Amino acid sequence: MTAMQKPLIGVLGGMGPLATVDFMQRVIELTPASRDQDHLALLVANLPSTPDRSTAIIDGGPSPLPALLDGIDLLNRNDAALIVVPCNSAHHWIDAMRARSAAPMLHIGEACVAALPAGVTRVAVLATGGTMVSGFYQTLLRNRGITPIEPDHAVQQHVTDCIREVKAGNIPASAEALSPAIRILAEQGAEAVIMGCTEIPLAARPLSAFAAELGVPLIDSTLALAHATVDFAREKGWLAQGV
Amino acid sequence: MTAMQKPLIGVLGGMGPLATVDFMQRVIELTPASRDQDHLALLVANLPSTPDRSTAIIDGGPSPLPALLDGIDLLNRNDAALIVVPCNSAHHWIDAMRARSAAPMLHIGEACVAALPAGVTRVAVLATGGTMVSGFYQTLLRNRGITPIEPDHAVQQHVTDCIREVKAGNIPASAEALSPAIRILAEQGAEAVIMGCTEIPLAARPLSAFAAELGVPLIDSTLALAHATVDFAREKGWLAQGV
Repeated sequence: MTAMQKPLIGVLGGMGPLATVDFMQRVIELTPASRDQDHLALLVANLPSTPDRSTAIIDGGPSPLPALLDGIDLLNRNDAALIVVPCNSAHHWIDAMRARSAAPMLHIGEACVAALPAGVTRVAVLATGGTMVSGFYQTLLRNRGITPIEPDHAVQQHVTDCIREVKAGNIPASAEALSPAIRILAEQGAEAVIMGCTEIPLAARPLSAFAAELGVPLIDSTLALAHATVDFAREKGWLAQGV
Repeated sequence: MTAMQKPLIGVLGGMGPLATVDFMQRVIELTPASRDQDHLALLVANLPSTPDRSTAIIDGGPSPLPALLDGIDLLNRNDAALIVVPCNSAHHWIDAMRARSAAPMLHIGEACVAALPAGVTRVAVLATGGTMVSGFYQTLLRNRGITPIEPDHAVQQHVTDCIREVKAGNIPASAEALSPAIRILAEQGAEAVIMGCTEIPLAARPLSAFAAELGVPLIDSTLALAHATVDFAREKGWLAQGV
């Protein structure tokens, strides 16, 4: 690359593709910029053929790990200076990805937990069945003294339906599936809800008035990872000055 | 890459960053898919430090060509099977990029001209000053027997303002700058308007009712390139079957 290009931020994406686009848009919005040249340089490997993460964790389906490591290798071969993965379920394999990567990697779950309002004690997690079985959100919350509220079978079915509709591009249907899940978790005493799957914020956007009425903050994992990415870039001096 | 990954479609982007995201979203929407694995594999080099294309063409500013060729090299090193550039002005250097690239490259201007309604004889082009001076749209239109209507100085100023506002993330201000330009060109007899800069469709989206009232079809260069990309993938057999 020419000397003037900024360090590349590697994005291992396509899980799903719309969530990757949403992540990129959030990074762009969070970057102080008045012209193209102020923005961050991204190398986005949108690899949607990666086998389904949740099915692999729950049902022993084909492992996505070889495809994930291929993506990490691709980003490292191109000198990515940071790697992020806008897919929560893929973080089940974060240790293996970090062991493989020369570039540092952020953790989407840590970004979400850091974004929780101060003082909350009971937090629900909406995620794929695979992420729930993986258990990393429960561990991250307990390590902070927060009790995780896990969705029961009926709520999890709503969440699974919601995610599937987003992946098929049906946002209105996804919002319809999501709203009862949020309502039930609020009734069960959740003081905040982590949207721990990057498809869910796309479903939740039409529901902002509904969520505000319930009074339960929704933590957007895509936005939290975008914030962490731009913060990392700020600390490294990759942002334009004086914009 | 593992055998199951699809051929990579290389996207040389970041010119500007929001236009690249818009292009990706259009490709995703146009791809027949019910799950992640049905989508196309993209490798997106979002390189916003590339020097301003329009300034280079008009004022002899720093050439973007070395950065463009670096981007082409990056995508080729990663075995891109097709390369697209969602920036109209960058197509001033399409011959040099094609000469460098092992992968075939689509032309955004050809995609727009192919998307014009049949039978139009007078078509306006909204683009950066650089694209207008480059003249490739005028040539593409004349080669089809269509008379290009070039914006006068006042209209071009509206267009330049519109593009600058999108690059700074101010969509409402960009729409306000764009609407008089479209109205004046319609009054001058344009039967269709090519939005020949990938920022302009982002400004035009809030204006769809206004444009429909004027009765002038607006050709979206980002969407036209996305259609051409998905059509290329279909012909190559990269799309999922039976979705």
